[in-house]
Amino acid sequence: MIAPSFILVRPQMGENIGAAARAMLNFGLERMRIVDPRDGWPNPKAVAMASGAGRLLDHAGLFGTVQEAIADCDYVFATTARGRELVKPVVTPERAMEMARAMAAEGKRVGVLFGPERAGLENEDVALANAIVTVPVNPDFPSLNLAQCALLLGYEWRRQSEVFAPEVMQLARTEFAARVDVEKLGDHFEERLDAAGFFFPADKAEGMKLNLRNMWARLGLTKAEVQTFHGMLRQIAFKLKHQRD
Amino acid sequence: MIAPSFILVRPQMGENIGAAARAMLNFGLERMRIVDPRDGWPNPKAVAMASGAGRLLDHAGLFGTVQEAIADCDYVFATTARGRELVKPVVTPERAMEMARAMAAEGKRVGVLFGPERAGLENEDVALANAIVTVPVNPDFPSLNLAQCALLLGYEWRRQSEVFAPEVMQLARTEFAARVDVEKLGDHFEERLDAAGFFFPADKAEGMKLNLRNMWARLGLTKAEVQTFHGMLRQIAFKLKHQRD
Repeated sequence: MIAPSFILVRPQMGENIGAAARAMLNFGLERMRIVDPRDGWPNPKAVAMASGAGRLLDHAGLFGTVQEAIADCDYVFATTARGRELVKPVVTPERAMEMARAMAAEGKRVGVLFGPERAGLENEDVALANAIVTVPVNPDFPSLNLAQCALLLGYEWRRQSEVFAPEVMQLARTEFAARVDVEKLGDHFEERLDAAGFFFPADKAEGMKLNLRNMWARLGLTKAEVQTFHGMLRQIAFKLKHQRD
Repeated sequence: MIAPSFILVRPQMGENIGAAARAMLNFGLERMRIVDPRDGWPNPKAVAMASGAGRLLDHAGLFGTVQEAIADCDYVFATTARGRELVKPVVTPERAMEMARAMAAEGKRVGVLFGPERAGLENEDVALANAIVTVPVNPDFPSLNLAQCALLLGYEWRRQSEVFAPEVMQLARTEFAARVDVEKLGDHFEERLDAAGFFFPADKAEGMKLNLRNMWARLGLTKAEVQTFHGMLRQIAFKLKHQRD
């Protein structure tokens, strides 16, 4: 599977190229292409900002035009909040990366165009793309910069990967208590509390005990926590007994 | 529905507080809380960076401790890539904001803790949270900054909102051609191409025509584009005819 290329079109500040490289690498994307960068190439400011992601810049393809940069792509997305006068499907980052994954799985090459910082992509750039990607920002405050836009697209690419398919990641090294141990803890508490006269009045006792049992079950205690509770109970009982003596 | 509060814990640089405010407002989140900021509060650098998102800073709650900042929260997430020695569910941003939406719909208040730039949240902070949120970054290059982390959580909050539920947004003002017009265009092409002797040899003609029909159907042409194609054909035919004359 070939991951998408992120294609920076006429980027202005080297710092932003470096920041985009970092954003990409955060989500495992390494294919960067650069079209007609304002300050030439290579750009020392881009290298300085990219820091650990510098190899993306080393391997970045440099092109004179968008046409050349996308020549080998089977499908191209243009990231823009505008371009609405063009007849072109407009998709969310989520849908775009879902489509990209499906195409990549078929061996197709996908490119994503990002416009220059200030003005964004021109209509002539957008017209070359198959579809538009628009991040659903607050219409009253749309202020995504180049690296943030690359970050969100990269995030969507990785979010949908199989690697992170389980939405809830489980803690390693956590040993939850077996049901039987939770039951025994409930027994222990009930026994001590009974001895302490906690379950009063008698006609409420059954309901109180049920609520307690329910709580223990719900808490999801670890083995270690169950032992801690046993220890606490024992210690309190020990203390009480010796105070009485 | 009360949107989540983003709680910046001991933030260091004013610029990062301002950038976090911008990131939040991009996705319609306006509730910021700040715990013990290194450089005091208010912070002019934060205001300068926040620019159009300055009102988040004006309304931000200032607290001395995390405990105070989360006192009225019903559920708290801690954003961290570490803290794994604590027994605590670890969820993705996607799952966290799904949970947050469900709780907010029940009138519950949700807080999300973000640690200081350099070191991130301390274990003592994480221990106060109900769950950990970890962004599934590339383990070989995890370089998210404070504002980027806030951006991704804000993005997930908004992505899951009903406002943007349709994954494919449709273009306004696009009038696609009716099937019958597409058929007529196919007829027109077939007629002209037939006249031009395009369908050769005769035993291949049927297959060639079928492929063409299939193509027209697949393209999803607009009314205007269909008219353009008709016009192109007519013009070419006109030209050819007059050349011959």
